[in-house]
This record gives sequence, C-alpha cells and structure tokens, in this order.
Amino acid sequence: MEPNSNSLPPRVPLGVFCSSEGPDLRTLGVQAKERGQDFLVVPITRPQFKRFLFDEQVDFSLNKELQRTMESWREGQSFSLDDLFLKSVEFADMAVGKVSEWIDLDSPNAQIRINSEIAMKQEIAWATHLGLSAVLLPFPHDSAFNYARSVHSILGVLAYTHVWLQIPLILQEQITETKETVTWERWNQFRTLCEHHAKLSIALELTTDLPDNYILERWFGEPIKAVIVPTNIFLTNAKGYPVLSKKHQAFVRRLMRIRANFIISDTENRKNTTIGGTSTYQEYLRHLNRTMPELSEVERFATGYQDYLQSPLQPLMDNLESSTYETFEKDPIKYSQYEKAVYHALLDRVQPNSQETTVIMVVGAGRGPLVTRCLAAAEKANRPIKVYAIEKNPNAFVTLQNMKAEVWGDKVTIAFSDMRRWNAPEKADIIVSELLGSFGDNELSPECLDGAQKFLKKDGISIPANYITYIAPLSSSKLHSEAAAYKDLAHFETPYVVMFQAVTQLADPQSVWEFEHPNKKLDVDDEGNTLTNFHNTRYSKNTFTISESAILHGIAGFFESVLYKNITISIHPKTHSEGMFSWFPIYFPLKTPIFLPGNSKLNVHFWRLTDSRKVWYEWCVEHNLQIGAKSISLGTSVLHNVGGRSSWIGL
Amino acid sequence: MEPNSNSLPPRVPLGVFCSSEGPDLRTLGVQAKERGQDFLVVPITRPQFKRFLFDEQVDFSLNKELQRTMESWREGQSFSLDDLFLKSVEFADMAVGKVSEWIDLDSPNAQIRINSEIAMKQEIAWATHLGLSAVLLPFPHDSAFNYARSVHSILGVLAYTHVWLQIPLILQEQITETKETVTWERWNQFRTLCEHHAKLSIALELTTDLPDNYILERWFGEPIKAVIVPTNIFLTNAKGYPVLSKKHQAFVRRLMRIRANFIISDTENRKNTTIGGTSTYQEYLRHLNRTMPELSEVERFATGYQDYLQSPLQPLMDNLESSTYETFEKDPIKYSQYEKAVYHALLDRVQPNSQETTVIMVVGAGRGPLVTRCLAAAEKANRPIKVYAIEKNPNAFVTLQNMKAEVWGDKVTIAFSDMRRWNAPEKADIIVSELLGSFGDNELSPECLDGAQKFLKKDGISIPANYITYIAPLSSSKLHSEAAAYKDLAHFETPYVVMFQAVTQLADPQSVWEFEHPNKKLDVDDEGNTLTNFHNTRYSKNTFTISESAILHGIAGFFESVLYKNITISIHPKTHSEGMFSWFPIYFPLKTPIFLPGNSKLNVHFWRLTDSRKVWYEWCVEHNLQIGAKSISLGTSVLHNVGGRSSWIGL
Repeated sequence: MEPNSNSLPPRVPLGVFCSSEGPDLRTLGVQAKERGQDFLVVPITRPQFKRFLFDEQVDFSLNKELQRTMESWREGQSFSLDDLFLKSVEFADMAVGKVSEWIDLDSPNAQIRINSEIAMKQEIAWATHLGLSAVLLPFPHDSAFNYARSVHSILGVLAYTHVWLQIPLILQEQITETKETVTWERWNQFRTLCEHHAKLSIALELTTDLPDNYILERWFGEPIKAVIVPTNIFLTNAKGYPVLSKKHQAFVRRLMRIRANFIISDTENRKNTTIGGTSTYQEYLRHLNRTMPELSEVERFATGYQDYLQSPLQPLMDNLESSTYETFEKDPIKYSQYEKAVYHALLDRVQPNSQETTVIMVVGAGRGPLVTRCLAAAEKANRPIKVYAIEKNPNAFVTLQNMKAEVWGDKVTIAFSDMRRWNAPEKADIIVSELLGSFGDNELSPECLDGAQKFLKKDGISIPANYITYIAPLSSSKLHSEAAAYKDLAHFETPYVVMFQAVTQLADPQSVWEFEHPNKKLDVDDEGNTLTNFHNTRYSKNTFTISESAILHGIAGFFESVLYKNITISIHPKTHSEGMFSWFPIYFPLKTPIFLPGNSKLNVHFWRLTDSRKVWYEWCVEHNLQIGAKSISLGTSVLHNVGGRSSWIGL
Repeated sequence: MEPNSNSLPPRVPLGVFCSSEGPDLRTLGVQAKERGQDFLVVPITRPQFKRFLFDEQVDFSLNKELQRTMESWREGQSFSLDDLFLKSVEFADMAVGKVSEWIDLDSPNAQIRINSEIAMKQEIAWATHLGLSAVLLPFPHDSAFNYARSVHSILGVLAYTHVWLQIPLILQEQITETKETVTWERWNQFRTLCEHHAKLSIALELTTDLPDNYILERWFGEPIKAVIVPTNIFLTNAKGYPVLSKKHQAFVRRLMRIRANFIISDTENRKNTTIGGTSTYQEYLRHLNRTMPELSEVERFATGYQDYLQSPLQPLMDNLESSTYETFEKDPIKYSQYEKAVYHALLDRVQPNSQETTVIMVVGAGRGPLVTRCLAAAEKANRPIKVYAIEKNPNAFVTLQNMKAEVWGDKVTIAFSDMRRWNAPEKADIIVSELLGSFGDNELSPECLDGAQKFLKKDGISIPANYITYIAPLSSSKLHSEAAAYKDLAHFETPYVVMFQAVTQLADPQSVWEFEHPNKKLDVDDEGNTLTNFHNTRYSKNTFTISESAILHGIAGFFESVLYKNITISIHPKTHSEGMFSWFPIYFPLKTPIFLPGNSKLNVHFWRLTDSRKVWYEWCVEHNLQIGAKSISLGTSVLHNVGGRSSWIGL
C-alpha cells in the first residue's frame, strides 16, 4: 500500500439498468461507451425462462408429459439460446448480471421453491461461466431462509463473480414503528445465515425518503459495493434539471468516498418536468463526484490503509525500523503539542531571569525529535536546560549520536539504556516521553514511566501527565471478515490498529481507565524499583445504550492525553487533535457477532492484566433488554484472550 | 465400552464437609474410613490466611511497611505452614479442597479484587500440587465477571484437578418472580464466559424448597459432578429419623443415576428432634441409593453409551459388520412389530382359504431376520407366500445363502443386488424393509424404496407405510463439550446418534416432515426409474415456545413409523415403543450455544437436500421475544452444513 500522491477524490464507476425488451447487449455496449457509462446491469435471461417455474401446473398426475419436461430440466439441461439475454462473452466485461426477479425461494409451494433454486443456480452458473464480475440478486422477502441457504450454497463455489444483494433503504410497505431498520434487519439475517461471506455484498437502493442520520450511519459498517439511484428520487431545479436534496447529496458523496459502483435506475415515473434523458442524471452524479471536497492530509496519509488490520507496534520488545520513525516524525501536530507542553512547563517551573538549569530527560528518545523540540521550547521560553536522551534501540542510537555530533552539541547528553534500568547521573526536573499507543497504555507507557520515575525529582513533571482510554461498540462487517479470514481463534483475540472506514460506531465512546504520571502512590524498594506490576492492572465495566437494532462486531479503542495542563493530544472522535495522524484507532474483535435489538443495553467488560513477563487485555460483553422495570438478559459472550493466550505485549 | 452386565444401580460416592476448627486431616481421614465416607471436603487454608486481603488498610501511603508486606506476598510467596489446613499429600486422595469463601473477586475495591485473585490462585495451585481431584469454589455473586475471568485463567493450566462451582437450587434472597432460574442464569453466565470448559462443573446445593419440575429438569443438561445435601432440608419421620420429602427423594435418586458425588453439609440449624448425628443422614442417603429401581433392559443396553457421540450408520454406502447385525437382531420389540404388520397385511389382502400365493419381497434383508418373521406371520395367518430376500452386502449374503440352505428352503428366493437396480422376475404384493435411521429418512430409506417401487404391484403394500421425523430443542453442556473437543467446524455440522442422559429437552417434539410408501406421485421413466431426486427434498420451519430461560446447544431428532395400519414403531419420547433399543435419538449440534430468555420463541429451520451423489441436512435457528403485540428479533444462527460440506449420506 502506498499513500495517495494526489488529493483528488476517486472517480466512481457509473452504470445503468438495461431491459431485455430493448436492443441486444452488443448495441447497448457500444452505446454505453459512447455515453461514458462504465458498466451495464443486464438481465441474464429473457422473461420466457420463467416457464420453468411450472407454477400453473400443480397436479402433475394429470400431465405426465409436463412432468417429464420438468424432471429433465431439473436434471440439468443447457439453456436454449432463446432463453438468454446475455448470450456470449462479448461485452461481458461491462456487464453485471441481473438474476430474474420471479424466482421465489420461500414460496409455500415446494415445487416453486425447488424450481426457483434450480433456475437461480442455472442463471448464476452461466454468469460465472461468462466471467461476470458480479450478479445482482433481488431483495429478500421477510423470513427468506431458503433464499439465504440457496445463495450460501453458491457463494462457496464462485471463483471470481461476486453477489450483490439489492437492499432498499426504506421499504414502502413497512409499518411505521420499525420502518427505518426493517431492510437492515433483513440484510443482517441474510448475511448472518451466510456466515458473513466475503463474496456477499449490498447494492443499496436509495429511496425518496431517507432514514434518520444515525440509521444511515449504520450502513457504513456494511459491505456496500453498489448504489442504485432510481430517477424518481430526483427533484427538479429551477432550470428544469434533475438534482438531489441536500441530504441525498451528502449521503451519495459519502458513498462515493467508499468507491461504490453507482447504478442509475430509470424509473418510469420520474418527474416529467425534467429536461433530458438518463444522461442528465448521469451528468449530475458525475458532477457530484467531481466536486467532492479534496482529501485532507490525514485522509491522504490513510489512503490504502482503510479497514486494514495492523498488529500494534511492540516498541519495547522489538526495535522499530528507521522508516517507522521517519513516518511518525512527520506528524504536523504531535510534536508541536509536545513543544508547547515543554515550553509552558519551563515557564511555570523556572522564574524569568533565573539562571537555574532545568534537567529534561527524554526517555525513549528514538531518533531525537522530542530532543529537538525541547531545545526549541527552551530557546523560546528563554530558560537554560540540559537534556538527556535515553534510548534502548541500538539502531536509533546511531542517529542520536549523529544528531549530538552534528546538531545538538553539549546541550544534550545521550545514554544507551532501557529507561527502566538506567543508572541516572542526576535527577530530572522534567521527563518527556512519547510511549503512547492507540489504546493509551498498550505500548506499556505505565511500566516504562514507573521505571523512569526513580530519576524524577519529587516535584518533577512528567510530560505526558496522564492518558485516558476510551471504548465504543463497533459494527463493521468488513473488519469482522478481515479477522475471520485467518480462520483461527487467535485473530479474534488480538487487538488491531485500524484506520476505520467501513464501520459504524453504535454509541458514543466512554472512558474505561486512566494512568497518571508521576504515580504518587507507587510503592518501590530502596533502589526505586517496583516489586510487582499489579498496580498497573485495570478493570472496567461500561454500559452503552443501543437505540436501534444493530450487529456488534467488536470494540473500538481511543485515547486522550494531557501532555501538560491544557495541552492535550487526542484520538477520541469528539476531541481528535486535528491533522494528527500518528495514531489510528484500535479494534478489539469479537469471536461471534452479536445481534443487539433496539433499546438494548450493552455491558462491555475490559481488563488490563499483567504478570512478570507481559501485559495483555481481556474483554467480553453481555447484553440485555429493559422491558419496563424488568431487565431481561440476552446473553453473554465468551471471554476473549484469557490469560493473554492469543495476544500480549512483552515487558 | 461394554454393556452393563448387571442391573444394580451404581453406588454413589458419599462425603462430608470438614471445618478447619476441628481435628487435623489425618484424624478426619481415619474417622471417615471408619464411618464409611468416601471423601472429605476440607478447607485448603485456615481463616488467618484472610489477612492477605489487606481489606482494612485502604491508604497504604500511611503504612509503607504493610505495603511492602503486601507487595512481597503478591510477588509470589510460599504459604507458611500455619496458614494451611491441608498440609501434605497424606489423605489427599480422599480430599476435595474448599477454596476460602472470603475471596471477593468482584469487590468494588481494586485491592481486594487483586488480592482475592492471588489468594485464590495460591490455594488452587497448592491443591493441584497435592493432586486433589477437585476444588470447590463458592457461589458467584451477581455479575461475577472478574471471578469468572480469574477461574477461566486457571482452568487452562489445571492438569488433573477439576473445579466444582457451588450452586444452590434456589437463592434465599432472590425476588419472587424469577426466583427459580436465578441461580441457573448465574451458572450459565459463568460457564459461558469460561467457554463451556470441560474442567468446570457444578456442585449443586439442594434447598428446602425445590423449584418446579421443569426447572429441576433443566439441571440435567448441566455438568453436575457433586450434590451438596444440607442437613436442614431433612424432615423428621415418626420415629425421629431424618427423611427427605418425596419430591426431594425423586430428585436425589435421579442425581444418583448420573453418579454425582454426594456431600452432606451438617448445618447447625438441623431439626433438633432428629435422632443421631451425621451418620443417620449418611445412612439415609445410602438407603436411597440401595433401593433405587433396577436398570431396565434398555438402560442396561445403553450403559456406557450415554452422551457418547456416534456417527450414524451409512448402510447404503458401507457394508455393515456381522456384529452390528447381531446387536440389532436382538431387539425384542422391533421384529415382533414387523411380524404383526406382515400378519395383518396378509389377513387383509388375501381371503381365508384362498390358495393365492402372496409375493413378499424383503428388500435389504441383511442376515434375514425379517424373512424369518415373514414366514412366521404367513404360518400364523395361514396364507401361502413366496419370499424374495434382496441384499447388496456380499458378506451378509453369505449368511442368507446359509439360511436358505439350512432353514428356509424353497419358500425363499435370495437375490444379490442393490434394490434400486434389481431386475425383479415378478412383481411383489408386499415389500418389507427396515431402512430407517434415528431421524427416519437419514439412512436413505426414501431413495431405496423409490427404487424398489418399480417391482411393487400397483395396489401393493409397503411395510413401513410411512415415517415422520420429529425435532426438539435441546440443552446439553455435555454434548456441546463433546463436539467442541474436536476443535473444528465439521464436528458442529455433523449429526450424531446419542443415548441422551445429561440433556434437557426444552420443549415437546414437533413433526418436521414425512415420507409415504408407495409414493403415488412418483414420476418415473419407462424403466421405472426416477430422473432426479428433488421430490425427496424437504424443508420445514418449526416454532417452539421456551417458557424459562435456557441455553440451546442443539436439536434432538426422533422418528415415528407406521409399519401397517395401527402397528407402529417409535422413538418419539412420548410414544416410544417400550423396550425397543435399536435406535438412540439423533443430535444436531449448534456451533455457538444460544441463550434463550424466558418466554422466547425459537424457530428451527431444517432442510433435507440432495444432489445426484448424496443426501444431507442443513439447519439453523432464530429466536425472538414477544413483548405484547411486538416481536423483537434476538438473532439468527449461521446455517449449518451448507451444501453438505461437513456431513452427508452417500447415495
């Protein structure tokens, strides 16, 4: 993956629906190219293929011949050429196959069920044979268990072709109370039955009414591969051209961000005041696409990393590579916040004009960016300082030696040591460190700073002064599939650093725990060392209210940190330091996705645990439903990562 | 496994609780042997060990010395001899270790939580070191997540020792409405968090009041390893001796059947009108044990097979072994029902004194038991018959040749063939087959009899005339653990034949589908063969009402069959043919156990599917809660065994 080199928004593929009544595919294909359409959604068969439902003929005992015809078709006949609309491989690279809408896999009539399944499989087999990239399947009726089963049995054998399930945002006939989540619930049941199969995606159909924003938000946790835009959802502007409402525009642009394929569906009942044919709709969508806001610096940085599961760094156990330092040193925000923090700490600690030298120790100095910032802060504050740079990575230490020789000179003393075992020649006024991970303490900042505390003066300052960890329940079909792809338990018990894109946060984040430095209550022996690490264990239970039905795939983690007084850094979504890209959020998966009904309560239990060699997290959830004064338990997950069996951070 | 050779009920192990205040273990051990006690439940430590909770000392900054003491204990000190009640390996083979009740792993005070965990682990590590077979842990408080986590982290490292969790049947303080399932729900949450670990079992504590029978029933699906019998639940009989109520007696005897360890808990407040000490309670329990009803023939047959997962037979694809025929031929009921069926069919079909010869074909004759029964029926009915015996197993066919030569003579014609491909010399009046499996059609009786139908006269009779398949939702921690032990998906997608013991059926069985023979609607070609097998596919949705909260582990399957008119065989629990042992029920596991709240509805979807080479089943469940007029979905399981990927029956 390479960072995006330009800031242009991605150009989305655009296609239209074709009817089997119109011209043949060759003509349509040539037309489409002329009209600047990228692909076509075409029926696989002609309407006459429906005769194989045999739905008129209930009593076969009266018509043996017909029964023979059916049986020999069921046995596996070839298509007759007349049955097919999609006849050959020509233009197949431009086509998405549309499966016949008359298939009825959950009919109460067993014959229709069986014949529908055979017909659907025959159509999809043909589409696969032609090498189509996708087939579009009709929206599932209520309780479409047999439909889901039939599709699941196909998913496993598809080589190249993907399945798009057509899902409208809102169902016309649905009852008022639950109208906004009915189609999501139907999708959720369908894909749950299909085991979250990676080849099953959504073709989301926009509707005239849009649900509330937080319901729209829910769809971004789902695998949307296509967006169907019916022409009847457009308004007509003063000049007679089709336009979308502001709310539709915003939603469409977010869908363009995730590079969905857009399909214009030319409904008969489009506003007849509108000027022009399908092309005006197409031009409008292209216009929306072109005029999307440019990518921000952070977005550019993240391009290609979205929803990609990365194992968190283990800078204590492993030595970071030069390129890793290089990347993070480019953060435009983080180091300027550190400089501000050191600057204000110096101002507060030392009187103006005092010639007292402040001892600053940068612990875990890496290649030295914080050392440089400390020097700059001192210069600006006009306070004399002496800086120690302590680093345990022998490779980074080479750079530190270079920096001292060529840039810093005598103001900086460098020491090659693990801060927990360093024999400091004097005590520090200020200790500066950048040991935070996406979950705050997950790169063992607490343990390292416990060790460094022995050379901090009693009234000394630690920058950062604290860090608070936050969690939020997350829905993300994509992240679940990514973890599931490994087909083992360990990957469901490992936290990942992830740039979230196809995710839905199901409730606002809540704080789980905090660490403060220096730790005034720290118990140490005569050498200043701790005997055990139990004081750094944590346990927290958080209760989230889930307003609308949703599926929970995992827990998102963030941190906020006070560097000094009001100078903070944060990756909490509501307080995120703008432009800071050093940390993506962290993601803790759940082994089994959990369905949360609307109005349920979700309790999340989180532990930070430790033994003499490692630190690890464990997590589990339970959910319940509040019915009046009564709370009905709906179940408890297993404990994840018991005893650190799947993931841990080495001390 | 060998069938039980005698019919005596098993002798249950009996033990008592010991106090750390009383004599030492050596004295207690010698006493116990004299008194005929099999084991002792003894505290691992003395009460003074509680000082390590340090619960009085909240502010350690005021007492550095105490803090050091705590830290060095936390680091992992050895027990001092005075802290231990259980001091050495002597008598350890008689001891179950009792973990201190003062441990408080879910205290709001973090110090107490951390120290409780260390103390509990220290006690259990010592018990394991001594090689105790089990340790008894106190009943978990409400929301005991940290307790469960701590125990789970130990379970994985126990070599030999098992953990028994003390669970009272009814909680004194519990609120009325949900009183009967509170303790089960707490157990369920605890063991769910512990991933149904095989080393975690229940020590069920009897209470003065017993819950309703269907709640008691629920416990038999759980891993009960011990039963605690407090002396205060006893009544005093006219002679002044302790006795249990009828309901308690019945429950205790069922618990004795599953060979639980019984522990008498001598509560202070036992009826003081009662004569004698602990020994009278002990004698009473021994008496209940001795006077249990003898094992029935079926129970003797099943001994050793309880809850053991067997793969169903595949008699069509594989050739059965002689010993398998031998076992099933001994069934005292099945063949007599077949004889009755043939007898009545002959009486109905042929007028008395008619000299017309009835042609009977035994298809799948095996070693010939049905042939013998047909001959006996004809003799009794006084009707002339001619019997064909068709068998495709070359080994069984040797026996058939022997039988013809030595016993049957000219009345019987034998043919070596698969019935589906046999070229019959004439047509049959009656076809007799025994092709049923535990799920009715799961040994492919429908497909075999479709093939045989071509040589049945138009008005001919099939024995059996039909078979109906039934299912019921099942809770069984044991069966779940058995399937989980394989640590793969395939074993959760395979049906097993099982003699149920540690199971709870959560609702009455319901029928899912039926097959009838001959199949009047069968469509065949000119040679009498079917073109496809789609007419033998089935799909059914059943809705079960779950009255009290429960955990669902899988689906039980049974069958009922009409052999002829009112002559039936059945393994449906409510209509089971008494004494018939040829079929155990079938069990379809679920990959993830599902918690069902009280008053929920469970929908079970079942499919029988087929292609040209095989037949298989797929299944899934969904559950929902009815709140007034509103139905709230609580989730859907995945589809099991999609496309027959894990289990199938070869055609």
